[in-house]
Amino acid sequence: MTETYNDSLIADTMETLQSNNYNIYFNDALAEVARFIEQGKYSRFFVLTDENTGKYCLPLLREKLGDADFDLIEINAGEESKDIDFCIGVWKMLIDFGADRKSLLINLGGGVVSDLGGFAASTFKRGIDFVHVPTTLLSQVDASVGGKTGIDIDSIKNIIGTFTQPKAVFIDYEFLKTLPARQILSGTAEMLKHGLICDAEYWSLLKESDLSQPTGEMVYKSVAIKNKVVLEDPHERNIRKSLNFGHTIGHAVETYSLINDEDSLSHGEAIAIGMICEAYLSYKKTGLSLDELNEITDVLMELYPFYQLRDEMNDELLEIMKKDKKNLSGNINCTLLSKIGQFNIDNICTSDELIESLQYYASLN
Amino acid sequence: MTETYNDSLIADTMETLQSNNYNIYFNDALAEVARFIEQGKYSRFFVLTDENTGKYCLPLLREKLGDADFDLIEINAGEESKDIDFCIGVWKMLIDFGADRKSLLINLGGGVVSDLGGFAASTFKRGIDFVHVPTTLLSQVDASVGGKTGIDIDSIKNIIGTFTQPKAVFIDYEFLKTLPARQILSGTAEMLKHGLICDAEYWSLLKESDLSQPTGEMVYKSVAIKNKVVLEDPHERNIRKSLNFGHTIGHAVETYSLINDEDSLSHGEAIAIGMICEAYLSYKKTGLSLDELNEITDVLMELYPFYQLRDEMNDELLEIMKKDKKNLSGNINCTLLSKIGQFNIDNICTSDELIESLQYYASLN
Repeated sequence: MTETYNDSLIADTMETLQSNNYNIYFNDALAEVARFIEQGKYSRFFVLTDENTGKYCLPLLREKLGDADFDLIEINAGEESKDIDFCIGVWKMLIDFGADRKSLLINLGGGVVSDLGGFAASTFKRGIDFVHVPTTLLSQVDASVGGKTGIDIDSIKNIIGTFTQPKAVFIDYEFLKTLPARQILSGTAEMLKHGLICDAEYWSLLKESDLSQPTGEMVYKSVAIKNKVVLEDPHERNIRKSLNFGHTIGHAVETYSLINDEDSLSHGEAIAIGMICEAYLSYKKTGLSLDELNEITDVLMELYPFYQLRDEMNDELLEIMKKDKKNLSGNINCTLLSKIGQFNIDNICTSDELIESLQYYASLN
Repeated sequence: MTETYNDSLIADTMETLQSNNYNIYFNDALAEVARFIEQGKYSRFFVLTDENTGKYCLPLLREKLGDADFDLIEINAGEESKDIDFCIGVWKMLIDFGADRKSLLINLGGGVVSDLGGFAASTFKRGIDFVHVPTTLLSQVDASVGGKTGIDIDSIKNIIGTFTQPKAVFIDYEFLKTLPARQILSGTAEMLKHGLICDAEYWSLLKESDLSQPTGEMVYKSVAIKNKVVLEDPHERNIRKSLNFGHTIGHAVETYSLINDEDSLSHGEAIAIGMICEAYLSYKKTGLSLDELNEITDVLMELYPFYQLRDEMNDELLEIMKKDKKNLSGNINCTLLSKIGQFNIDNICTSDELIESLQYYASLN
């Protein structure tokens, strides 16, 4: 018997999800890690952390692993660590530690750790096994599922990467309990996106909930939505593009902020801005009603701090958008909505349209 | 009607081979490149060359491509260009040229160009299409087929890479006609290996032929052998390991020479040494007869220059072998022969055994 509402939901409803040849564990997920290693017949294993997860999350994992012996690879916290130079550092440590093809890499951390660790593992000796133990809400509901790995070059996000599935994902609600509010909200943006692109009911539930404390059930629901989408289209040929809603503009604003701001935007804060802009484009181009645009705008503006977009930034933002992986033939490509709960992919947007949407956001102050 | 023996063989027998979801073209292969691009609906294409193939081979390709517009990426010739730093250079050029996910990379060159280009393409924006146009005998009979891509870090060969199939391979005999003798012999070593591991008749044919001028038929035969092996075991779980015969010691000698010698050994020269040593280990461990050991030794010593191995080199050679991808649990792993035409995988060799085999080679002077 558990005592809190959240925990009882976890215990009652969160069955293991089947993904692309791997399992996503929810119940007592950290204990599952130990079982997985035992059954995996690995020659050895390595844990990749950042300085924060090394401090706050590794002890929880260590407790479950008992006497198991492993080497630790630690990177700095923050998006800067996704640069190719850090990836080379991880490769060199695997070499120095004598990792072989039967080694396992456990990525214990947020999206930077899982994206970078997944890429490093998927290319080390042409590929060793890896699993994700996501420790932030954002990485639990987004990065850890779907088999995308990636690193940055010259601050271009995920410009280099592979599609490689982890061997398992372990989503432990325990980690969320100590996260700062800003990190929780960073993940909430992706959860709201899941509702907006394909589940109006889930969107309604979320907007009426206290999103500073998402329940285990909500996390599970978001992972289930994302898993369904990526299972159907693992290589992003069609419906997986739905997950890019808010991300063409959001990624650009995030990159801009990373380069220019001392205290840069979180992923979720940037994606929230992107979703408002792209909801505006949806209203202009793909039939989203004015009422729904206003509803989306209100919910997101209520949750996320306002970020001052100025006209002088437009050129740089457009330049970043032009380098986006999702583009074809030099055209900037957005996933939009036709209504709440229904996405519309492959919309080419002109510079003028994109700027108008940025100005819409700027006018909300 | 053609006039030379080689050319008529090419015309009569060299049908397109089917590999792992791609074709290997032999007849009029360069013209096939043009047809492939036309049918591929690519947004654009890029050609990767080194300074030599840019000078000697690109004009032949250009002739077939007509007015087609492409951007050129050129690297220095030589194994040093397989370092991660050069790979980053290729990625940055693809970014600067505005390559998108529908772009095609054509790797025009030897094994360095195809290994590096294949890796760069397989990871750029999580993977763009690439094809190989191998211009050396070595790359025609070895690197271009099988879907291995790879780059080096700290002179550790292919320590980073992926298994990614090209979309096509175009093997044009024309390129071989202008190759220097030493480069031809570098490729011949791999052809001899194909005979040794699985076709005694082919080995007999080769040892009685003038290997300074392998025929088109021989090239075709070697590609067909390699293709059969990699089709059956693309990820090197079992029979593909047969192709590693000569390579545990050969790679170590090659790496040693690359680091220490002004005029370093070619791949084939190093692999010939590796095959002699590993034939000795086969005689000691897996039942190769003394007669066959002597036969292999004689053929290879006749073809390749003697390289002075000294006892002082052993520690460094063993150190390099220990970092070999093929090892498991710290043990050095060799593919050996039980007789000519029959391989035997996963033989763990002790340092003493390996040193003894190096001394066997050294004694042949």
